[in-house]
Amino acid sequence: MPTPAAKSHAYAIGADYGTNSVRAVVVDLADGAEVASAVYHYPSGEAGILLDPKDPNLARQNPADYFEGFHRSVAAAVKAAKRQRGFRPENVVGIGIDTTGSTPVPVDRQGTPLAMLDEFHDHLAAHAWLWKDHTSFAEAAEITEKAGRSGDGYLAKCGGVYSSEWYWSKILHCRRTAPKVFAAAYSWVELADLVPAYVTGNLDPEKLPRGICSAGHKAMYHAQWGGLPTARFLRELDPLLVPLAERYAKPALTADQRAGGLTAELARKVGLPAGLPVAVGAMDAHTGAVGAGIKPGTLVKIIGTSTCDMMVAPLADALPDVPGLCGIVPGSIIPGMYGLEAGQSAVGDIFNWFVKYLAPAAYTAHGDPHANLTHAADRLRPGESGLLALDWNNGNRTILVDPRLSGMMLGQTLHTTAPEMYRALVEATAFGALTIINRFEEYGVKVREVVNCGGIAEKNPFVMQIYADVCNRPMKVSRSPQTCALGAAAFGGVVGGAYKKVEQAQRKMTGVKPHVYRPNKAAAAVYAELYGLYRALHDAFGTDGYQGKLNHVMKQLIAIRDRARK
Amino acid sequence: MPTPAAKSHAYAIGADYGTNSVRAVVVDLADGAEVASAVYHYPSGEAGILLDPKDPNLARQNPADYFEGFHRSVAAAVKAAKRQRGFRPENVVGIGIDTTGSTPVPVDRQGTPLAMLDEFHDHLAAHAWLWKDHTSFAEAAEITEKAGRSGDGYLAKCGGVYSSEWYWSKILHCRRTAPKVFAAAYSWVELADLVPAYVTGNLDPEKLPRGICSAGHKAMYHAQWGGLPTARFLRELDPLLVPLAERYAKPALTADQRAGGLTAELARKVGLPAGLPVAVGAMDAHTGAVGAGIKPGTLVKIIGTSTCDMMVAPLADALPDVPGLCGIVPGSIIPGMYGLEAGQSAVGDIFNWFVKYLAPAAYTAHGDPHANLTHAADRLRPGESGLLALDWNNGNRTILVDPRLSGMMLGQTLHTTAPEMYRALVEATAFGALTIINRFEEYGVKVREVVNCGGIAEKNPFVMQIYADVCNRPMKVSRSPQTCALGAAAFGGVVGGAYKKVEQAQRKMTGVKPHVYRPNKAAAAVYAELYGLYRALHDAFGTDGYQGKLNHVMKQLIAIRDRARK
Repeated sequence: MPTPAAKSHAYAIGADYGTNSVRAVVVDLADGAEVASAVYHYPSGEAGILLDPKDPNLARQNPADYFEGFHRSVAAAVKAAKRQRGFRPENVVGIGIDTTGSTPVPVDRQGTPLAMLDEFHDHLAAHAWLWKDHTSFAEAAEITEKAGRSGDGYLAKCGGVYSSEWYWSKILHCRRTAPKVFAAAYSWVELADLVPAYVTGNLDPEKLPRGICSAGHKAMYHAQWGGLPTARFLRELDPLLVPLAERYAKPALTADQRAGGLTAELARKVGLPAGLPVAVGAMDAHTGAVGAGIKPGTLVKIIGTSTCDMMVAPLADALPDVPGLCGIVPGSIIPGMYGLEAGQSAVGDIFNWFVKYLAPAAYTAHGDPHANLTHAADRLRPGESGLLALDWNNGNRTILVDPRLSGMMLGQTLHTTAPEMYRALVEATAFGALTIINRFEEYGVKVREVVNCGGIAEKNPFVMQIYADVCNRPMKVSRSPQTCALGAAAFGGVVGGAYKKVEQAQRKMTGVKPHVYRPNKAAAAVYAELYGLYRALHDAFGTDGYQGKLNHVMKQLIAIRDRARK
Repeated sequence: MPTPAAKSHAYAIGADYGTNSVRAVVVDLADGAEVASAVYHYPSGEAGILLDPKDPNLARQNPADYFEGFHRSVAAAVKAAKRQRGFRPENVVGIGIDTTGSTPVPVDRQGTPLAMLDEFHDHLAAHAWLWKDHTSFAEAAEITEKAGRSGDGYLAKCGGVYSSEWYWSKILHCRRTAPKVFAAAYSWVELADLVPAYVTGNLDPEKLPRGICSAGHKAMYHAQWGGLPTARFLRELDPLLVPLAERYAKPALTADQRAGGLTAELARKVGLPAGLPVAVGAMDAHTGAVGAGIKPGTLVKIIGTSTCDMMVAPLADALPDVPGLCGIVPGSIIPGMYGLEAGQSAVGDIFNWFVKYLAPAAYTAHGDPHANLTHAADRLRPGESGLLALDWNNGNRTILVDPRLSGMMLGQTLHTTAPEMYRALVEATAFGALTIINRFEEYGVKVREVVNCGGIAEKNPFVMQIYADVCNRPMKVSRSPQTCALGAAAFGGVVGGAYKKVEQAQRKMTGVKPHVYRPNKAAAAVYAELYGLYRALHDAFGTDGYQGKLNHVMKQLIAIRDRARK
């Protein structure tokens, strides 16, 4: 497509901090087109992750990679954009930033990450605690238990369970296992806040803007109790948490707010004007939802190794607390609306597990095992394998919020094949997706359309068609393959003045692909029956309201396993 | 071991008709030692089985193979025995015969199998209906249903369900699908009766002795209702079944009875004396139990692709009908005792399924996949995989008697490995074995020892140790690797006058290996916990007494599958 007249064009940059790399994308604010992009892979550890061979739960990152990653990726993207007709750096109006989360980083009084100080460089606890670090499960259980007893309502806003992946669990675990690091930490800053603070030269922990997205979904920040959890509650966890909360700037801000202006030094490095407006940071799934065109009634599914399922609802709506959701936070996705986050703990990860650990040589010897299995599985009709699986190999995030659940497959005969099992696992994740849709609707959040994005939505028509058939709804796919960066750029456009509200930016910049996966009537009918059976198993093994009392089975197996492994 | 003084020695021959071949064994009656043996592989079809590419349920055999197989295998065994010091054909005192069953063969008025007539040679229905032929499932369901309504008590003696593998199901299916063959069949003779009839020249269908073993376990023959099912009952299935029952010689005989003497023609062919006593035939699992030394209190497990679990109890004991057993038949194993048969529909078949359809290249590329998986699985501790499986990939024979159940595995994570799953499947079959032991004991049949035989018992210490640990009982292994032929030979010895009763023969001829698998206390404790969970799943998915009502899940999946495959 030829670029339209250059003069009228304004651009924004979205910097998307993923698990292994940061991607900077230069976006045309007129239509959301990607003008150029560049990726910087974090050089530390294994694919950017610092691991502990003795503890598989541990996952940390070197904060220096984030800082280096900003100017490397943005400079490269700007340089590449300059080769495009019509692009000029001075037409860039703003920068938006999204990151993984909860990824808290301990910093000193100046806001310097402790890991960047010589004293703490070799201490894993002084680095960034990556979202998928699960070392803090005991603290999470304690927080859940005490939050439940507090009567303050904390759990109602985070689906009933506080996660080991989240802000306070990690800080408390550091307090208990690495007291030196804890003592040296003047504050803990979410990655989504740290990067904007760094690029705007405003690292003072007491002043740097905290985004409502991480604060609300991960740090139990809510207007209902005046921000972070009360001192009384934190003191019960540990008195030393109280000053950390006191140093946390209030109020937490939405991503359409300006965090500051690009520092002169970084501006020179990346080839952009100094003082360029930078938006308050948000988490990747949330800007991804924005980039996929989220609005009331639109469910955005970001499908990768796991899923995030995002919706928004006007603040004016009387929204009940929806049990099982990861969070309900005003302004976390779109300012002025509730952001609702749900998710499945494993989707692509389950397919990868099957390929890595089980697929026989016939499907792995030549070519891509996923493609080979898909080719065979695609020829099967719904129901014809007689198999049914639960998608809980990594626990269940929504709607059961229970990491101590496990996978299950049922219906095997002496002739059951690998492609049949592969298909059953795909179907199981689709049933999990439907369960989330139903949960939204059960609590009055009507799902009028589903827009999918992420690797699987982009590249896997087999999976997407099954999702359409199982959910008996059209499955749309986001036009942009980089919705997180696109959503961040949209906020960059807003803080840069190109749009007044992010909804206006969305209308221009986002959209879906022409091809929509539409449900096949016959398949949907079979899946409706199978879903009834899935739901019977789901309730029997996952809930304690179930008469038959099988909900102890998976947990007891895990307890036996943990004892056996000791 | 040097053979003791030859003169005192008497011998018997056991001819064991398996699924793919017949094996003749010459046995020293003094101690049960195998003097010589020979195998004849049925030449027809695929490994002796006639298949129908359009119907995977069909499995037939050419009766000519059985006849040819007798003189070929016995002649070769006798010839080989002659090379042994001290053996002389004139010291052979009798022949015993065991076969698969229920394997009924349609014969004409002279007792000639219809398949051996030119007219019917190409008609699959005119051949032997091999035990594992499942074409007659609809007729089995009808017989079960009508037998239940009859009030005659037929089902109480066969575990509550009449099987598609059994005599009347197959005959009724022939009546409905191959009326010409049915009309030409003057009688249907079980293979266990046909071979003795042939070798003694007494093929007249009205006169040839019918063994109580097949009659009682497969044809609903029971003294309680005067033999075969009543004419009234058979008429309700089909009036043409009535004459078939009328032509069936009564009473059915135990295997310590003489069927007749070896014909002169066959005697010449095999190199044995004409008129040599031949015992009434029995089914292989039953003579196998005899050859493994079955007696009251001893459970004999024949473990192969599936299992037969056999016990005996004195007729004097008040034995209740044990729900779920395949049959309770006076005299079917040891004359004067109840023969009790239970079994698991798949054991080795499940391990084979996993290797054939799922094991990844790491375990299949080099060497024996079973050995590779076993090597890895053997290093795991009980419970450490967090997995639990049901052993129902081929339905459940005992104690649920339900072919429409299916396999299940639970507890998978994103790190579950193939050896972990392989071990879980082995453990599942052990839990199934324990469930059978418990069922015997629940109804007052005390299990004082367990003697295992068959391929897995012989060759798989990994499986046998898990059985010992799961059942928390010592697992003994039969001394003879050919217990079926040995048991048949023991009956040969009885009809030949070497022993008065088969129990005396057993005391001399049978025994167990010195190595006994003894339960490991710690492992048994973990398995006791796991069995509690297994039993919860077993009852939830397998019984309708269960509160939680999950027993529809597997059946409904099969119904959906069958519709999808149409």
